[in-house]
Amino acid sequence: MSTQAIAADPRSEIEARNLRFMEAFRRGDAASVAGLYTASARLLPAHSDFVDGTDAIQRFWQGAMDMGLKEAVLETLEVEAHGETAHEVGRYTLKTAGGQVADAGKYLVVWKQEGGAWKLHRDIWTTNRPAA
Amino acid sequence: MSTQAIAADPRSEIEARNLRFMEAFRRGDAASVAGLYTASARLLPAHSDFVDGTDAIQRFWQGAMDMGLKEAVLETLEVEAHGETAHEVGRYTLKTAGGQVADAGKYLVVWKQEGGAWKLHRDIWTTNRPAA
Repeated sequence: MSTQAIAADPRSEIEARNLRFMEAFRRGDAASVAGLYTASARLLPAHSDFVDGTDAIQRFWQGAMDMGLKEAVLETLEVEAHGETAHEVGRYTLKTAGGQVADAGKYLVVWKQEGGAWKLHRDIWTTNRPAA
Repeated sequence: MSTQAIAADPRSEIEARNLRFMEAFRRGDAASVAGLYTASARLLPAHSDFVDGTDAIQRFWQGAMDMGLKEAVLETLEVEAHGETAHEVGRYTLKTAGGQVADAGKYLVVWKQEGGAWKLHRDIWTTNRPAA
């Protein structure tokens, strides 16, 4: 029996990274959330232009936390990997301190391997809620 | 000198498909717009759940046209291809009959080769406009 490590499949690795995202978010640790993204990552948030790079991404998530968001739940629906790049489709739920759902919707993330780990590289999501 | 066709690069091919999207949209031809998507494509629009498959995608774009959108301008910023899959980041502008900008924002599309052509497979976009 070989002791060689079996490479985890990309879906499992990406779900593990999402778990870290959720844990960091729950701690209110925007720096650790931002550290899960590549150095050249971009967010594509609604009601904003692109948010580029680690510092801006940290400020974005800090702002979301400052607005009262305490929990981000990420549910992976699909992962397709092609070498060092993958895309993921999933559902998200954002909750406030009382566990109330502040928003729920869906997302598309392009992941890249950087420094031996899968990192979010392009991140965009849309609410399922009706227009205001 | 070889007469062998040089395979067009994915970015050029995807930009050519976007041109077709814009032309079909300008004609108000939602069926042709939907035909640019894979058979198993999904839209991830704001204020809606997933929109899955050719018929639902045609209805979605027909609805946008019926609401008065006459022109969709797509500007490719980035294409990365990995075999038969690619992702594209770009900017969009939606205009009404008078050429007025109804909405402007950014998008992320996962493209797949299907039947020898690049087709939109996962399509999500967000407005740059401030929240209502």
